[in-house]
Amino acid sequence: MLVSRQLKLVQRPSGLFQADNFTLAEETLTELADGEILVKVIYLSLDPTQRVWAQMDSYLPAVKLGTVMRSFGLGVVVESRAEGFEKGDLVSGLTGWQTYLVAEARQLQKIPRVPDLPLDAYLGPLGMTGLTAYFGLLDVGTPKAGETLVVSAAAGAVGSMVCQMGKLKGLRVIGTTGTEAKCQWLQDELGVDQVINYKEQNVYRALRKAAPEGIDIFFDNVGGEMLDTVLTQINIGARIPLCGYISAYAANEVPGIKNLSVLISKRAKIQGFLVSDYYPRAAEAFTEMAGWLKAGKLHYRSDIYEGLETAPDVINKLFTGENTGKLLIKLADA
Amino acid sequence: MLVSRQLKLVQRPSGLFQADNFTLAEETLTELADGEILVKVIYLSLDPTQRVWAQMDSYLPAVKLGTVMRSFGLGVVVESRAEGFEKGDLVSGLTGWQTYLVAEARQLQKIPRVPDLPLDAYLGPLGMTGLTAYFGLLDVGTPKAGETLVVSAAAGAVGSMVCQMGKLKGLRVIGTTGTEAKCQWLQDELGVDQVINYKEQNVYRALRKAAPEGIDIFFDNVGGEMLDTVLTQINIGARIPLCGYISAYAANEVPGIKNLSVLISKRAKIQGFLVSDYYPRAAEAFTEMAGWLKAGKLHYRSDIYEGLETAPDVINKLFTGENTGKLLIKLADA
Repeated sequence: MLVSRQLKLVQRPSGLFQADNFTLAEETLTELADGEILVKVIYLSLDPTQRVWAQMDSYLPAVKLGTVMRSFGLGVVVESRAEGFEKGDLVSGLTGWQTYLVAEARQLQKIPRVPDLPLDAYLGPLGMTGLTAYFGLLDVGTPKAGETLVVSAAAGAVGSMVCQMGKLKGLRVIGTTGTEAKCQWLQDELGVDQVINYKEQNVYRALRKAAPEGIDIFFDNVGGEMLDTVLTQINIGARIPLCGYISAYAANEVPGIKNLSVLISKRAKIQGFLVSDYYPRAAEAFTEMAGWLKAGKLHYRSDIYEGLETAPDVINKLFTGENTGKLLIKLADA
Repeated sequence: MLVSRQLKLVQRPSGLFQADNFTLAEETLTELADGEILVKVIYLSLDPTQRVWAQMDSYLPAVKLGTVMRSFGLGVVVESRAEGFEKGDLVSGLTGWQTYLVAEARQLQKIPRVPDLPLDAYLGPLGMTGLTAYFGLLDVGTPKAGETLVVSAAAGAVGSMVCQMGKLKGLRVIGTTGTEAKCQWLQDELGVDQVINYKEQNVYRALRKAAPEGIDIFFDNVGGEMLDTVLTQINIGARIPLCGYISAYAANEVPGIKNLSVLISKRAKIQGFLVSDYYPRAAEAFTEMAGWLKAGKLHYRSDIYEGLETAPDVINKLFTGENTGKLLIKLADA
């Protein structure tokens, strides 16, 4: 009998995640029923949205206390009683924080393998991360070549994709991030035009200097003070795809946005979106992004940690700004 | 020689307008040059946006100190040296707070008269007010019959138009306002489905009760706390046309919006707009609205005061919630 090791949520976080929000458990897996597959989890994807899932109902109900922490992940099929799924197939979806799971096959997505790509790409540029960047920028942001794009959390998993897609679409790209190393990576390796270290610089003045002609698109992962500052410098007709609100996820006190009325004089919009609404169009993005990847035009970086037990600590890097690129926990080899 | 009486802005307001923000002046008008018209102002239109104009640069530069206060108005041509304009023609546009003006004809708009309509209609349902309501609701709000629409400052000039157009388009309409008399007018005469007196009721709970299935469109004239409360009750795909931000115009301290991140989980948008962007499409709105007016399907109310000197005091009714319908100052008969 196969045993799955699991991290269950036993206490809702306040501020950052704490070790005692979770408990380690073991579950002996049962025989597969028809339509089910047994999956070995290879990578867990750590995403800011998990902080919301752990705390409250949102677009998904809050994770129930006493159950396995909800998480995206990538796995490999070990055994299948579902049509269309075979041993060795790659699958992604809500695996949860556990080493193995038995799931109805339709709850997970079979991944078409692209030759020569490492597995972490399927949770990064070719996964939810890439789709989020792709549709948020192109569909919500509707960029036109020559426009100025500002990306917050630019060195993050989504942000770094957005920056590069912005360049590929002919935009002038300004990224904000919190360390010098990330600034360098953005500028030297990803080709971002201007970077702002929000921890070191006055963001208002730095933006004025970096975007003297104003901001056309603000791809925002952060919200809060950053959004409030950018609002003062948007152009007429500006679009603000609101992708995340990291500033609030692990904060007890949320600072209010004071400059919203500028949306009127600038005929501008803030539009929230969820990648799940774009799943039906995933193939179109997958094709273009796989092309960019193979042509070496899209770079990505994974921050990979090992072992299930590290997840509650490692995930906090998303909120303290310590990660560079897609944060993953490796649980097993394929 | 004709003398125009004028109110000039001499001090920027802080909070509400004060009498000493203005000074009364007289200007002797000169002979017309080619292309100019002499206009007698009949009505001044008092609008919340004037509070912004008096204070700071926005979509228009701030009114210069020592110059006539900027204002929309309706006038009649007294003398013309411009092609296409004749004595007796109605014109509207930025007349300013003055009894007469000499202007280049192209700075004002000639108004096609609809038989049997009183003149105040051209600053209300058939003026900027009506166009604002029409395009804000239909173009930005993209309503679908059966949806739930909430309108703030619902008894105001724009708000009362939006409520009625909402009903004409098959929406369930909820209006917020600040007096019982306005509540009654909205419900009994305009056919609004539910009204909320925000000064008497807990808006959060009243909205829950009035819109148990959530809010699809929020036509917002107010911003601030009202917007923050509505955000907690929007549906997936909600649209928030941001028309005005009255709560901030005469306030020294602007409360921040704390619930903006809900735009993400609800895939919703807040979109500012200015009626001036829709002037090229004015004819399309004019036709439909004139039809509604003639058929008795669109009711409007003007709050008319008399005399130029009353303007600085009367305009504050927009910010204290004392007006019902379109606020006008009558300066002369046609």
